[in-house]
Formats: sequence, C-alpha cells, structure tokens
Amino acid sequence: MTTEIIEFNKPKLKSPIFIEGLPGVGNIGRIAAGYLIEELGAKKFAELHSSYFMPLVLLHPSSLVHVLKNEFYYWKAKKKNQRDLIILIGDSQSINPEGHYEIVENILKYIKKFDVKMMFTLAGLSVTEPKHKVPYVLGTTNSVKLVKKYKKYGIDFKISSHVGTISGAAGLLLGRGMYHKIDGICLLGESIGFPMIADPKSSEEILKVLIKILNLNVKTKKLDKKIREMEEFIQKIQNIEKQTIPQTISQQPSKISDEKERLTYIG
Amino acid sequence: MTTEIIEFNKPKLKSPIFIEGLPGVGNIGRIAAGYLIEELGAKKFAELHSSYFMPLVLLHPSSLVHVLKNEFYYWKAKKKNQRDLIILIGDSQSINPEGHYEIVENILKYIKKFDVKMMFTLAGLSVTEPKHKVPYVLGTTNSVKLVKKYKKYGIDFKISSHVGTISGAAGLLLGRGMYHKIDGICLLGESIGFPMIADPKSSEEILKVLIKILNLNVKTKKLDKKIREMEEFIQKIQNIEKQTIPQTISQQPSKISDEKERLTYIG
Amino acid sequence: MTTEIIEFNKPKLKSPIFIEGLPGVGNIGRIAAGYLIEELGAKKFAELHSSYFMPLVLLHPSSLVHVLKNEFYYWKAKKKNQRDLIILIGDSQSINPEGHYEIVENILKYIKKFDVKMMFTLAGLSVTEPKHKVPYVLGTTNSVKLVKKYKKYGIDFKISSHVGTISGAAGLLLGRGMYHKIDGICLLGESIGFPMIADPKSSEEILKVLIKILNLNVKTKKLDKKIREMEEFIQKIQNIEKQTIPQTISQQPSKISDEKERLTYIG
Amino acid sequence: MTTEIIEFNKPKLKSPIFIEGLPGVGNIGRIAAGYLIEELGAKKFAELHSSYFMPLVLLHPSSLVHVLKNEFYYWKAKKKNQRDLIILIGDSQSINPEGHYEIVENILKYIKKFDVKMMFTLAGLSVTEPKHKVPYVLGTTNSVKLVKKYKKYGIDFKISSHVGTISGAAGLLLGRGMYHKIDGICLLGESIGFPMIADPKSSEEILKVLIKILNLNVKTKKLDKKIREMEEFIQKIQNIEKQTIPQTISQQPSKISDEKERLTYIG
Repeated sequence: MTTEIIEFNKPKLKSPIFIEGLPGVGNIGRIAAGYLIEELGAKKFAELHSSYFMPLVLLHPSSLVHVLKNEFYYWKAKKKNQRDLIILIGDSQSINPEGHYEIVENILKYIKKFDVKMMFTLAGLSVTEPKHKVPYVLGTTNSVKLVKKYKKYGIDFKISSHVGTISGAAGLLLGRGMYHKIDGICLLGESIGFPMIADPKSSEEILKVLIKILNLNVKTKKLDKKIREMEEFIQKIQNIEKQTIPQTISQQPSKISDEKERLTYIG
Repeated sequence: MTTEIIEFNKPKLKSPIFIEGLPGVGNIGRIAAGYLIEELGAKKFAELHSSYFMPLVLLHPSSLVHVLKNEFYYWKAKKKNQRDLIILIGDSQSINPEGHYEIVENILKYIKKFDVKMMFTLAGLSVTEPKHKVPYVLGTTNSVKLVKKYKKYGIDFKISSHVGTISGAAGLLLGRGMYHKIDGICLLGESIGFPMIADPKSSEEILKVLIKILNLNVKTKKLDKKIREMEEFIQKIQNIEKQTIPQTISQQPSKISDEKERLTYIG
Repeated sequence: MTTEIIEFNKPKLKSPIFIEGLPGVGNIGRIAAGYLIEELGAKKFAELHSSYFMPLVLLHPSSLVHVLKNEFYYWKAKKKNQRDLIILIGDSQSINPEGHYEIVENILKYIKKFDVKMMFTLAGLSVTEPKHKVPYVLGTTNSVKLVKKYKKYGIDFKISSHVGTISGAAGLLLGRGMYHKIDGICLLGESIGFPMIADPKSSEEILKVLIKILNLNVKTKKLDKKIREMEEFIQKIQNIEKQTIPQTISQQPSKISDEKERLTYIG
Repeated sequence: MTTEIIEFNKPKLKSPIFIEGLPGVGNIGRIAAGYLIEELGAKKFAELHSSYFMPLVLLHPSSLVHVLKNEFYYWKAKKKNQRDLIILIGDSQSINPEGHYEIVENILKYIKKFDVKMMFTLAGLSVTEPKHKVPYVLGTTNSVKLVKKYKKYGIDFKISSHVGTISGAAGLLLGRGMYHKIDGICLLGESIGFPMIADPKSSEEILKVLIKILNLNVKTKKLDKKIREMEEFIQKIQNIEKQTIPQTISQQPSKISDEKERLTYIG
C-alpha cells in the first residue's frame, strides 16, 4: 500500500497555515502541536497510513487496536487577524530513509489542495549545555525573505552555527516544500535533556512563539498536565520502535563541532 | 511481482466470516486454523505469493518443490446457525516491515470481494509465568461494540494490561480492517513455552472459543496428533527464516512491564 | 528501473526447452550452462539487467565496462530427436530477497512468449563428505509425473533427505514456474568443495545428464580448460559481492540434520 | 516520490557532451566538474531529487534549508571547435544499491532528450603508493573505438590492471549508457590520499585532460582556492552520510591484487 491518506471529510478552508508536529527530539513538536489541537478544539479530518511505519498495532485500554498513523486536524479562524489552520500530528515517522521522502511528498501534495502557502514545522534541538535560562527557539526557512518578517517573534535564525542538518519530516517538508511553492519555517526548541525524553519547557517556548505569530487565544498553563497524559503514549511507541528497528536512521539533527564552520556552497 | 493472489476458483459465499491463522508465537493461530480446515474439510480456492517471503522453495518428500505461500480455504455453512467461512493459513509472514502492510492490504481487498464483514485473527501471547491452569484466551478488537457481544465466550478483553502491541498480520488485519469496514477480533492464546515452540494446549483453547462462537461441529480430540504432523513443517520454515534472515522484525507482541501502565491517547 | 529485459532479436523457436545456469554453489550450474553455450555455438538474443544487481561495472582488459547482467542464448535443434533451447547464464543473482522474486517473474513471463513448457534449472548441493565416487546428480521438480519420466537418466529424486530448501533462481523458477504452466526439474550436482570454489567434476556430471536427456552432440572433454577461463571472471564477481554486500542472503540450500526428517504438509 | 527531475528551463543545445561529477573517491570528479561550471559560467537548468538520498536538509548560513540534490548545468559553445555541454554535479549519490540504478536511469533518459551522444564521467582511483610524479589519469569506456581516439590525450586505458570495478554513477552511466546509445569515457584520477579527503592535484589532472579534449578556455590556477571553498560543503555531507548510514555500499572501486589477473569472459 506504501502511503495512503484517508479523508473523512473535506473542510472548506481559506488558504490555511500548515503546522507539523510529528515525533522527534524531546517530542517538542509533537507535544506543542498536540496541545494546540486540544486547546483550539481542532477537528480531525484525515489520516495518513504508511507501509513505512512499524507493522504493528498498539492496544488501548478499551481493548481497541490502534494502527500507527499521522492525523490531520483543521481549525477555522475566529477573528480577522487569525488564519485557518491545518495541524498534523502523529504516532510515528518513517522507519526507513526512503519512506521519509514518500510520506513528506504525500503530505505536501495533500495540503496543496487546500491552497496552503505557508507552514511551520516544529522540532527539537538537543544541546549538551544550556545556553540560555529559558529554552531558546531557533528557526530555519526555505524562503530567505521570511527571516526578516519573523525574527521579531524571538526566533534565532542563526541556526547554522548550532546545527548542520535537520532530519525527517520537519526538515524535508521545508526542503521539498519550496518546490511546491509553500514557504515555511522550522521552529526548533533547544532541549537540554536526553533526546528521547519529553521537554515541556521547550515545547512551551515554541508554543508561545507560534501563538504570538498566529494570534491564537491559547494559554500554555495546562501544558504540564497535558504533557503527562500525552507523554506515556508517545514514549511507548518510541520504545517499541527502538526495540524492534534498531537500525532506524536517527532523527536527531547532526551537531556542528566548530561554531565557525562556514557552509559556502559553490556550483 | 510484489504480492499476487492466485484464484483457482471463486466460491459463492454468503457474507462469510474470515479467519486468519498465519505463523507466529507458538504457532497457536496457525495450528488452530489448520486443524479447523482439516476437520471441516474446507476447500482451497486461492493462494497468495509475495516477494516479501523468503526467496526459496521447500522440498517435499515426493521431490516436489513448495514455494512459500498463504492459502485461502472456504467452507459453506451446513446449519442455520452457522456462517460461511474463509480461512487463511500459510507458511510465512513478510520478512520485512513494509511487506506486512502490503500483504495485509492485499488480503483485505480480496476478502472484501466476498462481502466479508467480520473476521477473527488468531495469535499467541508469550508469558513467562502461567497465570491460569488452562491457557487463557485474550481478545482485542477494532470495534468496541464487539467487546460486549463476545466476552460471554470467555475472552478476556483486558488485554492492554498484558501486552502493548500486536505485530504482523494478526494485528494489522484488525488495524487496517476497520478502514475497510470489516469488524474484527484478535484471539490470543496465552502460551508459557518458548515463542518458537508449538503450544497445543493454547491452540486448543482458542479453537474451543472459535467453535463455540461459530457453532461448528468440530471436536478437538484429534488435535494432538494433527499438531505433531503440522509442527514439523511449520518449524522447518521458521528455522530457515531464523538462519537466513536474522534481522527479521520480531512477531512477538511487546510486553508491558508495568501492569498499570495506562494508554491514554490525546490528540 | 527495477528489472528490464533488452531483446536484441526475437528468434523463431519451436516450444524450446529452457535451461538456467546462474551463479550459485560451486558455480556448478553456471559452468555447465556456459559450456553448453560454447560447445553448441548458441547465440545471444537478450539480456536482463536489474536494480537488484550490484550497482557497479566490471572492467575488461580491453578497457570496456561490463554492467552486471543475465544473458539469454538460443540454439535451434539440428536433428529430429532434439529440441530448440533457450539457455540463461549470468554474472549475478539478486543481492536482496525481494529481487529474486522479481527477476524470476520477469524471466518466466519472457520465456512464456516463446511457448516454453519445460525447463531445467542447474544448481549445486554442497556436502561435507563425499557420498559417491563420482559427484551425484540430484533432482527436484514442480510436476510429480516428471520423476518417473526422468529418473532413468540417473537423477536421484530422493533429494528431500539431503536438503530442505533451494534458494534463489534455481528453486524459485520451479516454484513459481508451475503457476505459469511450465514444468521443470532442478538438477543439483553434489559438491564436496567449498561453496565458493568451482567444482568442475560436479558440473561435468550435470552436463552428462543434460546431454543425454536433450540428445545433444556435445563432448565434455574440453570442460576443464573452459572452466579455468570462465572461473576467473565468475570468481571475481563473487569476491566483489562478498566484499560489498556482506548481508546477502545465502544461496546455499539449507541442510537437513536428520536424514529421516519427514516433511508432511497438512492444510 | 523515488526520483524526480525538476526542470527550471529547457535550454536549446546542439547534441551536447555530458559531463558527470558526483561525489566519490577524493571528490576528484565533483571538484573538477564544479570548477568547470564556475569558470565557464554554466547555468543551472534542472535538479534531480531522490528518495535514495539521505532524508534530511542541510542548513546554509543564511538560515536557508538545502535539500540534497544533483544539479544539471548547461554551457553553450563559443567557438567552432567547441561543443555544447551539460554538466551534472551534486551533493550525494544513492545511499542504497537499488537507488544507483534508478538515478542513473533517470539521468540517461533525461539527457537523451537533449540528443547527448557522448559523455565523460569523472571519478577517483585510490592507490596506496604513488606510481607517478603527477597524478595519473586512467580511462575506461563503453565503446572500444574511443580508446584509439582518446589515448592521445594522455589517458591510460590499461585500467583493468589497476582496478576491477567502478561503483556508483560514474560506472553505471557508462555501463547502462551503451544501451541508450550514448558513448562514454570514465576518467579516473589516481589519488594517493585517503578516499574521503579531497585531492586537488588529481582533480587538476583530470581537468587538464578534459579541457584539452573539449577545447575549453579554462585555466586551472584558481583551482586551489575554489577547492577550499567547495570542500567544506562536500565534506560535511559525507560526514553526515558516514554517521547516519554506516552500511552504505562503498563507492571505492575494488582493487586487483594480481596485476596480471586476466578478465576473459566466456559465454
């Protein structure tokens, strides 16, 4: 079957902003996007299944099976200064390299149908030493004009001195998105903990930036409680993944040893 | 060729129940389904071959080669309180993760043509210590209304306190089946032995539950003898699989360390 | 590209016999088929290339590159008691499991166009101790009626007491061939040496059987000389394969520890 | 998505010569082709993306993401004795064996549309001891008549005594190219250093040969400076590749132990 998007209904949206929060470092993006869905009361309208997810089902306490999936939610703007949203969360990313490209391509083609022109992908950046009192929000983009527009929101776009690459969906959505004419920013929350442990503070910082950009009426005070609820489920999937697929490509961005390392690209 | 279903003839069946018994933990499902075919005199009508099986043939004593396959059998109801059946057994499951999804998808699309609306997948659950005198039958489902309907048959639906995931066809058929509008229950026989050794008692308990649900006229007394005959063949394939494909994803459900571990899923 | 058959010309053949001799244990089949092509003066008419071969080219002393391939040759019967032949030799088999199925399927579909109804696949069987003075020729088939017809040629069809499986093209061509209505026999030359070292004596015994069956006017006395010439080339490819693809699935048939092990298959 | 060629514009070219310089041993080909693009002022007109590249984006100092790609440049002949050129450079080759075939096939089909009839692929050959004062340029071809035509340019076509195979695009483009009726020569620069370290001297020797053959007005004196600029970027990608994909098939040609080893190929 490779990859399939199952659409339950087709919401009418006005050039929505797309937000991606799939599992990754510290589950920072996953938690932030999941909390946004909860607080906004966003509605699920589609699912993505893929042969590139682990071939298993999870079991809910209700005795229901749960096949691994990514889920599309929508939310309609309530005020003039807001925008319709499509938010993608999920249980898993591809367990093999090729799958990442295929899944990202399916997502991009699907959101194009809703006339998406701008996206935010959410990720974490694992650092060994805390550099700031509050976790820092870094940003990278596929359209250089966005740097100017968005740095006022407290996003540090000097990311290339901290990290050399972004793996998986958060990076590829931007990298391939520009060829689909979708502008995008990847917001990375600096995280001091182990890559596999949720970092609520970092998620909160990303959320605050996103809420400000999107003029959303969302408070982050319930985040801690919600994180504990979500965390168990997400952690379980990652443990299974680690046990069953040891060779999975790391979704941790590769670090740069020399901060001054330049990245000049010559034809 | 990826995956192909070869149909020898197309039986006329009245919304049959689908039963799956492919190799897995203790071969509990495989043995139960194989015995049912024997005792009912079910007829083979189709085979599934796949590039995701091992690229080899087995040799029968007759000198005939045997390509790895899954096999579809049918049985027509004899009494009013019975239902037509399609039973799937086989030599192998996919040897790589993607293959599981593809094979399951092919099976679901094929049985849809026969108007299948309900299925039972049969599997084993390996436990380290016996918790009951007779092996216990656990159940999980893709439709919560089935819990109420079927728990009277002695199926323990509190499975999520014992196991976190079900791998391979038994789980994916349910997980993906709901998107094809096929309700299903996975019956798991508790097994104390090694996952790779057949567990006749556990198969018998699953069979008893299935016979009761389906009002079948089948006695389980010949099971021991039949198991010995089947076991050799099935074991041989698994040994080859272990030798040749060491990295095959485990088809053993992942266990839960903490029985109280909750699985709350938040958007 | 996956797998492609490049046809240089389409010979008119009268329901030819198909002979396969791809690399494997002791290169017994490869050498026998290669010698037959040489001695008969068979003509190449098609090549098979595949993404499942190693992604490299070999270098000939002429400085020409050589892409890995399988090659189809034909030979037209000269006498009434002979049959037209299609002979397949090659540099390589698939380096991953799925590829075997795809390549075999492409071969079967291609030879069906020439109305092939019978095939001989040639392979080696590695044994630790010599059981006979001359290397023994074993046989397995996909059509039980062939056992009776061909055992008079000195083929031992009691193969299942020596070996449990046949991997790769020699086995799968038979196993899948029966679903394409092509009868077949796999001739296996018993070989005492290391699986990776050519076994001229074993190739010779297979050749003798084949020559008798097909009423060919071929002497085996030049075999030794030819083997030395072929061997270098074939060995080189296998060395590269071993260096670059360590995890390649073994093409050695799995041995049976207990000679009396029965293989009863029950539905 | 597998492999996709994105065409920004379709230049009108007169049966151009195709030059390939993708990453490989000492990045000799990549550096030579990149320098040529710079010095000629060649224009980019297409990109190739592939699921077989690593699923990540690189980060530029400008904060822009960079998806892994191969890039097609063209240059139009200025003088009568020159030819239009298509030059391919890139960040990466396939990270799995099948991908090499698919990418090469896509490249060949694409350049056929421009009526390419001749190509030069550029690669490195790692040697343990320097055999000559200046790095030597070796050559191999897919058309034996080219040996005579091009050996006057100082290309040593006795390559098969040094190396047994050429892996990846440089080899496969020639090997598969002959089936697309594109003649080709692979120029290999002898390199004494580690395969992973750029070898400017070797790139320069290849460039000199290429400039002479193509009658180009290019001086190699700025090469050292340019190499330092390019090297960082290329090296970074290779480091990531090494870290994340340890099992990647080696793109180093396999060496021949015995210089006299013959490579006679017998049907």
